[in-house]
Amino acid sequence: MIGVLYGVGVGPGAADLMTLRAARLIGQAAVVAYPTLAGGASFARAIAADLIPAGAVEIAMDVPMSVERQPAQLAYDAGAARIAGHLEAGRDVVCLCEGDPFFYGSFMYLHARLSRRFRVEVVPGVTSIAACAAVAGRPLVARNERLTVLPGPLPAAELRDRIAGAESVAIMKVGRHLGKIRAVIADLGLMDFALYVERASLPEQVVCPLAEAPKAAPYFSMILLTKGADPWL
Amino acid sequence: MIGVLYGVGVGPGAADLMTLRAARLIGQAAVVAYPTLAGGASFARAIAADLIPAGAVEIAMDVPMSVERQPAQLAYDAGAARIAGHLEAGRDVVCLCEGDPFFYGSFMYLHARLSRRFRVEVVPGVTSIAACAAVAGRPLVARNERLTVLPGPLPAAELRDRIAGAESVAIMKVGRHLGKIRAVIADLGLMDFALYVERASLPEQVVCPLAEAPKAAPYFSMILLTKGADPWL
Repeated sequence: MIGVLYGVGVGPGAADLMTLRAARLIGQAAVVAYPTLAGGASFARAIAADLIPAGAVEIAMDVPMSVERQPAQLAYDAGAARIAGHLEAGRDVVCLCEGDPFFYGSFMYLHARLSRRFRVEVVPGVTSIAACAAVAGRPLVARNERLTVLPGPLPAAELRDRIAGAESVAIMKVGRHLGKIRAVIADLGLMDFALYVERASLPEQVVCPLAEAPKAAPYFSMILLTKGADPWL
Repeated sequence: MIGVLYGVGVGPGAADLMTLRAARLIGQAAVVAYPTLAGGASFARAIAADLIPAGAVEIAMDVPMSVERQPAQLAYDAGAARIAGHLEAGRDVVCLCEGDPFFYGSFMYLHARLSRRFRVEVVPGVTSIAACAAVAGRPLVARNERLTVLPGPLPAAELRDRIAGAESVAIMKVGRHLGKIRAVIADLGLMDFALYVERASLPEQVVCPLAEAPKAAPYFSMILLTKGADPWL
């Protein structure tokens, strides 16, 4: 018997924004895997902490911070090899993923390495975009509106072009790109439509107009730009 | 004491892809509201059916099918008035929403009518996009890739322009627009990247290359176009 690899989205931060399926799989897990960033704690593990069985084997994949790809690739190679060992021994492995596994998630690196050899099941999760819109009380898209999702690290010129041609926009991974993004949005005359959201759904969340955003933004922050019509009409 | 209106995302279809918070709120609800379409059954209610308490008051808002907006607006006016009556009497109301309430959800029509007068809390849910990517085993976006979400009813010329300038694309509400969308994608030479997904996460789900899609698509169907690089590298 070969084990199954579950890529489990644990949602945006609040433990009860996990799905019932995710909670069940984590609660029954013999082996749990998750990424950690540059020796730090794992956000995904923190979200699921109360559900992980006491005796579970834990596989922490430490991903170094680097603009070069190779160090991260080696970390995923090593993690995939450890996971494969458990799967070959007949043990299922539950890999914890912040938000949704296939939406800017590190799980896709494991999926690429293991899905040809093993059965992989992906449990979708609530994305940070949905959580940010919810806590901001700001509908994302209605009727025939379009939504564009942009990563904050894109160059200013590309962000500008993409935002100018868009309707609703969510800008992810704001972090140290906050100043650049704010300048682009101000230049486009869209500051009145822009909301800043940080750590949505957690007790320390921040929701404010972009104009009032703090000087320094964490990686888990987002800007929502909704220019859609009032859905009342 | 005034009641609270909860806009609760029940996820894409499988009952266990609801969040723990959604399940708790529905299980405790005294009043449950949901839209029905043109006298038909409510998909949102069907997802949550096993959790709704036996004695709960149910408010079905029947939304007529019409390209004109006014008939639907009148249905939401009437639904909002009934919900307001319960809130004013001190009863919380749980409004069930397919997927996520603020992502093409009808809840935003109630939010627009009631959020200035009452406390409204939105519980984000798993979107159909995340569910489709999961069942298709197809990562949506990695690293600095962009995601564009387009509604299928958009005119062919606009779909063409938007898809041509995009990276990953999810096309929602395919339904009777399948032929038009397929022609646009074929014309752009992107058929090899296009997946068709219908009723993701339900027993009757369909996942296949767009080239093999059925002739008639239901409203709850989607096309995923992922042109991103192999995330292995």
